[in-house]
Amino acid sequence: MKRREWLAAAATLSSVAALGGLAGCAAPVLRGTGDLGVVIGRANGTLYLVDTTAQALIGEVSGLGDLSHASVVFSRDGLFAYVFGRDGGLTQVNLLERRITRRVMQAGNSIGGAISADGTLVAAQNYTPGGVKVFDARTLELLADIPAEYGPGKLSRVVGLVDLPGRRFAYSLFDANAIWVSDCSDPGHPKTTRFENIGRQPYDALVTPNGRHYIAGLFGEDGLAQLDLWAEDCPQVRAAPSPPPEGGKETWGGPAFPCQPKVQRILGGYGKGQAPLPVYKMPHLRGWAVAGRRAYLPAIGRHEVLVVDTETWAEVGRIPVAGQPVFVMARPDGRQVWVNFAVPDYHRVQVIDTQSQKIVRTLEPGKAVLHMEFTPRGEAVWISSRDDNRVSVVDTQSFATRARLDVPAPSGIFFTARAARVGF
Amino acid sequence: MKRREWLAAAATLSSVAALGGLAGCAAPVLRGTGDLGVVIGRANGTLYLVDTTAQALIGEVSGLGDLSHASVVFSRDGLFAYVFGRDGGLTQVNLLERRITRRVMQAGNSIGGAISADGTLVAAQNYTPGGVKVFDARTLELLADIPAEYGPGKLSRVVGLVDLPGRRFAYSLFDANAIWVSDCSDPGHPKTTRFENIGRQPYDALVTPNGRHYIAGLFGEDGLAQLDLWAEDCPQVRAAPSPPPEGGKETWGGPAFPCQPKVQRILGGYGKGQAPLPVYKMPHLRGWAVAGRRAYLPAIGRHEVLVVDTETWAEVGRIPVAGQPVFVMARPDGRQVWVNFAVPDYHRVQVIDTQSQKIVRTLEPGKAVLHMEFTPRGEAVWISSRDDNRVSVVDTQSFATRARLDVPAPSGIFFTARAARVGF
Repeated sequence: MKRREWLAAAATLSSVAALGGLAGCAAPVLRGTGDLGVVIGRANGTLYLVDTTAQALIGEVSGLGDLSHASVVFSRDGLFAYVFGRDGGLTQVNLLERRITRRVMQAGNSIGGAISADGTLVAAQNYTPGGVKVFDARTLELLADIPAEYGPGKLSRVVGLVDLPGRRFAYSLFDANAIWVSDCSDPGHPKTTRFENIGRQPYDALVTPNGRHYIAGLFGEDGLAQLDLWAEDCPQVRAAPSPPPEGGKETWGGPAFPCQPKVQRILGGYGKGQAPLPVYKMPHLRGWAVAGRRAYLPAIGRHEVLVVDTETWAEVGRIPVAGQPVFVMARPDGRQVWVNFAVPDYHRVQVIDTQSQKIVRTLEPGKAVLHMEFTPRGEAVWISSRDDNRVSVVDTQSFATRARLDVPAPSGIFFTARAARVGF
Repeated sequence: MKRREWLAAAATLSSVAALGGLAGCAAPVLRGTGDLGVVIGRANGTLYLVDTTAQALIGEVSGLGDLSHASVVFSRDGLFAYVFGRDGGLTQVNLLERRITRRVMQAGNSIGGAISADGTLVAAQNYTPGGVKVFDARTLELLADIPAEYGPGKLSRVVGLVDLPGRRFAYSLFDANAIWVSDCSDPGHPKTTRFENIGRQPYDALVTPNGRHYIAGLFGEDGLAQLDLWAEDCPQVRAAPSPPPEGGKETWGGPAFPCQPKVQRILGGYGKGQAPLPVYKMPHLRGWAVAGRRAYLPAIGRHEVLVVDTETWAEVGRIPVAGQPVFVMARPDGRQVWVNFAVPDYHRVQVIDTQSQKIVRTLEPGKAVLHMEFTPRGEAVWISSRDDNRVSVVDTQSFATRARLDVPAPSGIFFTARAARVGF
């Protein structure tokens, strides 16, 4: 592509000029980090580095273990990616040096993590052993170990971990029907508030872009559990501190809030599919989109996108789509919502115009579309097609494909701009 | 501060380690750009560079001419700042090399600019000569010159320039009572749509964070002009193409939209102060905040913040504050709105909790507070106090001052995270 070649050449020339006084010195390229990203190579434990201005692959880093399920957060300066792998690996990757700088095997089985807004703490959510671990973001030193112990010797799998303002983390306990919020202002002494009996088997969660609502999907019943983190009027205290576990380091109680927020049920019909789905087929709550006043979410067991009013949390519409939606993602300005699908429709992507609530485009970017990521201002969307070993860069105005990158078995795509977002 | 020292030490060590193979080579520091920012030194033509993780000054760049009124946009990779100065200077500054890389004197008098979402075009809005100039973002080569010619030999001062999706720019013509939208997809041949008779003397403008509404403040009458850029239903075509100016390069006509959006009047009472204000005291429209469904704006000639519903554009409330508001800025999650004031109350800043609509704090960070900027996730706000030669870093949860930086006559504060935002 002419533009990409120009941009790559320009970048190279700028770097050479910048390093003009360094003849004979090998050095990483001096460049900004704001337009960088990573693509997970799910079959070969490799992180592929991309430049969203050049729309090109710029490097790869191998040795990240089992990335069959992986997620990524970024340091607030955009220099480091923190990759959470299924095998419990937590890997710190320097994106400019293009190498692993630190790596710890922090659990037996893990599905993701978060980073605090001030960039100092990285937290991992673990299945085995069930709980949350908190690390120094710079050194990966373990600072806090919070077992998800809900009964004597019983540890729950942890899901739905998000960061909240003020060095706090919210997460759900699948086996304990609970939502916990840990305040790690003093990471050596986390203070945890517990919300119990929130609903059966929360399997995933999200926080809305304004950081206000923590919403957990329930596998064991219909509907979702919603925690209003801004709630001031709290007639009923729901948090139920229990005595500290034997030998536990954690200090207990003291609400993390001036007044106790409560958990309520929303979207009572959500989950009633035509047939029950196994839990691993339940839609990711990260597959929700908030665009303006509305949230767009995958229906369960139906070929529909549900439209929900985020003031009332009532369902206000349903949009028929080409398959079972997996991810429903909003363009940053909220004008479009893009949808990918589960097998057997996972070669397709559809675009909904939020103003008309209609599908305006159906694309076929390649087989097994696993993930989509928008550039921060939304002019392009990057789409991974695992079975075609391809990442496509699509113009969101014209729907033209601007670039195709060869990446073996690509899955998740994550851009450094996430470091600046609330709710990711 | 212990934390800052630790962070600064850590940053230094990381850089030294990174450049381990470069003994004897002078090099810019290898680091991310996502947490960088600039502070305008309005009295000495100097750009002060800051690190929002370390909460520290990290360098300065002089030689930027007249910065008594200046604004800044950033390249999408966060490497370059583009500084627009009052004297018509447009300066490209490399934030890692900490030096001016390119500089042009592009007009006689200029008040700001914008950058396209794809990062390729930088546009400047000029008073003298009245019009918009569009530059290659990498080289600062002039690509398009769009005189704001509204009659034979009559050029209007241009204000309120913003970028829209698809390499378009919207701007207002103070002397022509018009709003123009130029599509610079082919920068050599801009296509301009003109909206005439939009109201008397638009003096500033903004675009909402979703990129949908372009709103211009009117100096010559009450109320504001609103252009709905998403409007599909357009019963009345308002754009009025005119014959090309003599010798003009610009090609004309062809609506930039599938159907013509129209301009309407909103907030009809806005502007009725207790006494008319001179135009240079009119509130900046960039001083509006959009938090959730509501917009918060400075009242004109009253010590109030107006609250407006962004669905209906009706005024829904007024919050009494300590002086004539200048900037009303929302914390990124929308939970707080921070307000600074005009003389004589400009030593104060107030914080409004958007949920309760009440003032929850009054601070005195120093004399002559000119500007405020939030870190991208909102955990801190940076405040410039011109007459105390100080920039304060304030924790938005606790309101504690985390750091004070010595900066001579600081005014505008701009963080690289703006590169990722729609509507800035």
